[in-house]
This record gives sequence, C-alpha cells and structure tokens, in this order.
Amino acid sequence: MNHLSPFVRWALKLEYDGSAFSGWQRQKTAFSVQEAVENAASRISKNLPISSITAGRTDAGVHALGQVIHLDFPAQLKLDERTVRDGMNYHLQPHPVSILAAKQVSLEWNARFSAIERRYRYIILNRASRPVLENNRVWHVKRLLDEHLIREASTYLLGRHDFTSFRATACQARSPIRTLDDITVTRRDDHIIFDVRARSFLHHQVRNIVGTLKLVGEKSWLPEKVKTALESKDRAAAGPTAPAQGLYLLHVGYEDNPFQ
Amino acid sequence: MNHLSPFVRWALKLEYDGSAFSGWQRQKTAFSVQEAVENAASRISKNLPISSITAGRTDAGVHALGQVIHLDFPAQLKLDERTVRDGMNYHLQPHPVSILAAKQVSLEWNARFSAIERRYRYIILNRASRPVLENNRVWHVKRLLDEHLIREASTYLLGRHDFTSFRATACQARSPIRTLDDITVTRRDDHIIFDVRARSFLHHQVRNIVGTLKLVGEKSWLPEKVKTALESKDRAAAGPTAPAQGLYLLHVGYEDNPFQ
Repeated sequence: MNHLSPFVRWALKLEYDGSAFSGWQRQKTAFSVQEAVENAASRISKNLPISSITAGRTDAGVHALGQVIHLDFPAQLKLDERTVRDGMNYHLQPHPVSILAAKQVSLEWNARFSAIERRYRYIILNRASRPVLENNRVWHVKRLLDEHLIREASTYLLGRHDFTSFRATACQARSPIRTLDDITVTRRDDHIIFDVRARSFLHHQVRNIVGTLKLVGEKSWLPEKVKTALESKDRAAAGPTAPAQGLYLLHVGYEDNPFQ
Repeated sequence: MNHLSPFVRWALKLEYDGSAFSGWQRQKTAFSVQEAVENAASRISKNLPISSITAGRTDAGVHALGQVIHLDFPAQLKLDERTVRDGMNYHLQPHPVSILAAKQVSLEWNARFSAIERRYRYIILNRASRPVLENNRVWHVKRLLDEHLIREASTYLLGRHDFTSFRATACQARSPIRTLDDITVTRRDDHIIFDVRARSFLHHQVRNIVGTLKLVGEKSWLPEKVKTALESKDRAAAGPTAPAQGLYLLHVGYEDNPFQ
C-alpha cells in the first residue's frame, strides 16, 4: 500500500435486484446501481464525489449476488470495514442494493482488471404456470425443455472460441475470442439452472448462449446446430437473447481475493 | 365419483407470495388469498359463487409453494384440467397467486381432512447486510447463529408432545398434542433452513419453534432449555414468534394424492 497516497482503496462485494435499476452503469436519464452506490459512498465521505470501478457492468434487469467493485476513499476519514459496510448500507436504503463485505486493498488492486474469473448463473422456470415468488427472478418458459439435449449442445461451447455469434452487435470488446471454462446445466424440479465460468464474457454472451440452448431444449434445434452457429461467426446464426431477469452475477475471482 | 351430483370437485395446488395478502382466510376489511382464488373460480364458472377448503390456513405474510385446496364446480361446465389451471391463472392476475396443477377428485376427497402430512420450511438469512433479492422472503437475523446448537435443541421437539408452549394463545385446535415427525436444520452459506413435517400443526407452531431455536442459536439459551420450555406447557416459557415472511407451506401429503 502506498502510504503517501491521500486515498485508500476499498473492495466491496454487492448484492442487488437488477429489476429496480437501468443496469450497473451510470446514465443521465435513468437510475443505475452505480449511481446508488456512489451516492452512498459520497454520504460516508463528507459528500465528496466518489467514483467506482466494477468487475461486471451488468445490464438492466440483471441481478448480482457477488458483484465486486472498488472505490477510493480519502485516507483522512480512517474508515474501517464495519463503517464502510454498514454506513453504505444505511445510505443505500431504500434501494435494493446491499454491501455484503468491504475490504481494504492496495491501490494497485483493481476490481475489473485484477479479476481472473467471473461466474454467472441463469435460471429458467420451466412450467406452465407463471412465476409468483420468483417474479422478475427467472425466465419463465412454459414449453417443457429437455435438459439432456441442452447439456449435450452446451459442450460445443466449452473452451476457447470466437464467440462472434453469441455477442451483442454493440459489444465493445476488441476481440470476440473468449474461453468458456465451464458450463453446467442442472434441472431441479421446475428449474433449469445454467452455471457458466470464464475469465471474462462478451456483452450478452451468457444470455445469447441461454437463448440459443433453449431452442435445443424445446427441440426446435438439433444440438449440433449450436456447433454450426458458433462456427459461422455471425450473430444472426445463433438464437435470441434470453431475458435479463434470469441472469445473476454470482462470483468474481481474483488471484489475491480480498474476500477470502 | 357420484355421477348424480351437480358438482365436480377439483383439487388445486397453489403457489403464492404471502406478503401481498392478509393471509389465506377471507376477511371483510383486507384482501386474502382465499378471496383472490374464489373470485377467479367464479370467473370461470359464469360468476356463480364458489367456495374453497384449504389444507393450511396460512397467516398474513406466510408463503406457499405447495398449498392444496379443493372447490366444487358445477358439473355442467365440463371443465378440464387445463381450463381450470390456465383459466384461473388468467383471472388471478395481477395477484401473486399461481395455480400449479388442477386435478379432478371424488366428492369424498377433502383438501383439509384427507391430508395426512404437512411440510413447512422456514428460512433465516443470517448475515450482517439486509436482504435484497430475498426481501419479504426470509427472516433477517444479523447475529451469527450456531446451527449445531440449534440442531441439538431441535431434537427435544421431535415426536409426540403437548405443544402448549409453542402454540398461539388464540389457537382454536381442541388438543395441544401433536407429533412432530421430522425437523431438520441445514446451513447453506448465509441461510439457515428449517424443514418440519407433521400430520398437522398448531397455530403459530412452526414460527414459535423457530423463534425459540433462534435463542439457542444466538446462545441466549442453552439447548436443554427448549426441553424445559416444552415440558412447562406454558406459552410464556418458550421464545417469541418468528416473523411470517420466512415461512413457506411446501407440501401437503395425501394417501390418495391427486398430484402424483
């Protein structure tokens, strides 16, 4: 840690209900998680403006159970873990964001660039009747999906590929090459749960993967067609984008993980 | 089935978000799940009044994932399973109640009196930060609870006992004797999950058990004190009633289960 710096860097772990926000990123005309969090950070910093860097810029409607961000507080405030966590949680009310943990880190540590792993979960509620307790928390698919076919198709996506077919046309990433380290598909009664893990993801990559695998599950597509879609490197060759409300940022991994 | 009857009995399995209702039972001044369900039933019955019998009269705030009720529709309507389920779900909107399944049963079958088993789940969110995605779905307990002590204490409640200490003073049941067939306590990260099973429960029995076991978990009570509280047959000897929003009616069992 640089003891000459007038700032101290803090890593925060967050949970939020994405359905209440326009997404992570600050916008002029809509209320974002970033704005809620930075406002609360200002409130515990004598109203100084505080800016934050996030590990994952989630879209509108996407939830987080383990989002990680960092922000720099003035060193003179002499904040401790409990004051940061509980103070921010106090000022975050009534917005559905909660700081789960706060850890001081070195000024070289970066929530975005130090991250070596992201895990997302996507949940489909697969039943005829609409969701009630999980309203805005799942993608409701009425038609019965075959999870075995979905699992078979998902294996084509594992490993290092050009994911052009599965990234948003607006995606800003320089390269469409990503390595999907893991994708598991589990059925628990009426729920089909997709767990994916990679160093990083392209914009809409998880939702485009799920939207495509759903076509396989409902037997509109043969599993092999996912391989063809991937190889064609064309967004139009893959399926539609699954809705935001089924997606959760679960975990961000670091070599030097402040939360472990 | 009595083919001379002008009515056909239907068993329905329901999910609902208890936080939106004044409880199951119809009331003059507040909106109940019963009113929502019976209104929807009337809508698919040419506006004839339809009354229902429930397996579990849940209190305000208590959720259901597997509530079971029965109601009698005029035989001349010739309703089928899909029409009952989807028709009722259509008319239940926008209320957070969903009919998961509808099965025709004999006129002797009774959702309440034919039930031989009820299963409830109670969820405590045990962490410093307030719930966000599970707001109104859990009891938020900040102080760290020891689930091993809770589990030890819970065993005193297993089996056939006079549960006077754990029933609401307003409880209408003739006898305070109940047999608790199962109680399991599981920690999953920040969640402590209580699963209980009995033929039937007294009013507030599950919530009073959880409210008491929480005292053990936070080390205000030794586990043995739960035994003393039970034996004293005095409501004042047990702990407070845990809040409604952590409780879920999971399942109702029948010898002749229409949903299996």
